[in-house]
Formats: sequence, C-alpha cells, structure tokens
Amino acid sequence: MPRKRRLPTRDELRVWREFLETGEVLRALLATRLQADTGLSPSDYAVLLALSEAEGNRARSSDLATLVGWERSRLSHHLGRMERRTLIRREECASDSRGAEIVLAPAGRKAFHAATVPHLTAVRELFVDALTPDQLAAAGEVAAALRSHLDR
Amino acid sequence: MPRKRRLPTRDELRVWREFLETGEVLRALLATRLQADTGLSPSDYAVLLALSEAEGNRARSSDLATLVGWERSRLSHHLGRMERRTLIRREECASDSRGAEIVLAPAGRKAFHAATVPHLTAVRELFVDALTPDQLAAAGEVAAALRSHLDR
Repeated sequence: MPRKRRLPTRDELRVWREFLETGEVLRALLATRLQADTGLSPSDYAVLLALSEAEGNRARSSDLATLVGWERSRLSHHLGRMERRTLIRREECASDSRGAEIVLAPAGRKAFHAATVPHLTAVRELFVDALTPDQLAAAGEVAAALRSHLDR
Repeated sequence: MPRKRRLPTRDELRVWREFLETGEVLRALLATRLQADTGLSPSDYAVLLALSEAEGNRARSSDLATLVGWERSRLSHHLGRMERRTLIRREECASDSRGAEIVLAPAGRKAFHAATVPHLTAVRELFVDALTPDQLAAAGEVAAALRSHLDR
C-alpha cells in the first residue's frame, strides 16, 4: 500500500526506531553469549548452519553468499579466517565460474554441533521467552510482510 | 513467562530466523540507500542523530555510547573517523573521568540535515509501506516486549 504522503509520521518513526534498536540490542546480546559459550561468532555460526543444511554439507561460494545473505567479498574474507581455523575447506574448481566449493570440515561439524544447544537456549531465553504466543505469531507475520515487500 | 522446556520449537525457530534474516536484509538495504543518497553510513547517522537530539548538540562520550548502544572502544574509533571528516569535534576534559565531550560540528549538522529527508523516505518505502497499520502496531508491541525483557 503506497501512501501519498512523503515522510513517516512521528508514531511510525517511533516504531521504526524501537524495532531497529531492539534488534541491535538482541543481536549484540546473542553474539556475546554465542562467543562466550561456544567460541563462534554469529558469522561463523551462520556459515556453519548453511553448510550443515546444504546437500552433502558443501556449497558453491556463490550459493553460500546467497544463503547467508552477504556480499561475495565479505564471505570470501570470512571463509579465509574459518579455513585457517580448519572449520571449513575450500576446494578450487578451475573449470567453474561459480567459485570454489566450500565444504564443512570435521572441526566445523563438531563446533557447530557443540554450539547448537547453547545457541538455541539463548534464542529461547532472549527472544522466545520475551513474547506471548500472540506476539510471537505477530513477529512472524511482520517479518514475512517485510520480507515479501523487500524481495520485490 | 519462563517455560519449562529447554529448546525452542520448530515454529519458534522459524519465526526467529525470519525475524533475524529480515532485519539484516532491511538494515543492509537501508545502509546502501543512505550511503548512496547522503554519503553517510548508518553509524555516522546514529551518532549525528544522537548529537542532534542532545542538549546543546553535545554529549559526554560515555553518555553518547549509551545513546547509540555501542561499546566505548567502537564509539571511540568511529568518532576518530568522524572527527577527521569534520563532522564532529572532541573537546578533551582532563578533570572529568566520563571522557571527552563530543560536539556536533557545522559540517555534521549540515550533513545530518541533508540526510534527513532521503533517510526518512527510505524508512517509509522499505519499512512503513511494507506493513498494514495493524502490523505496524504489532511490530511496535513486539519491539517493546523484547526491549523490556532484554533490559531486565
């Protein structure tokens, strides 16, 4: 629903700022907990999660960039750091322009599995427990509406 | 409402991931628009906004860190970059342990004012226009519930 007026109202802006700021506080708290509990950053966790869910635990770097929603250059730098920590392996593919294939390595699989319960516990304590069932459903609806709008 | 079970259900996790991922897409799109339209990063904008709203357009760095929700070290690095671009000034205060006083400089005031309309337009187009009035109210309620939970 495009509206005619040009700028958000004061109430709309208040919701936006509350939404933005709360999301930042939530991400920062979760990142601190994840790092302290598991030694993984949220970026590490996002890559390991995507590879864990990928067919054969491997993905082209171009596909992985889409899955985690990052620019190729950011992904490439981060994968370099994860490779040095033996969490993932890169298998170069000279014949293929879609980039190297990224493979979940044994240490990455182990770190991801060890992180799962602490991470999910933190998500429950910081996010799920904050909301009533109705609020949780509303959060899902809001996210879906935003996603569908932004995908256009 | 603490619940007895330990891990989130599949549905709760689905909402969490959708909420997290949509927030990231939204922030990335807004950051790209802000940078392209105004030459300011979201971090620049957050600092300029906080100083614009502060009494006398100045704040102690410790208070500014609270206002923008960052660690002191992150704020300090960022303020160094903003000072070199003459967007802000730092006035050291040897007698005061709360840190330097940060002052909105003329170029910062000008950049912030020039950014306001493009930024608010982007917030309307990317966030407000995505949601029905009921969804917007629900987003505000969800954010307030999260904030109140996380502040405890």
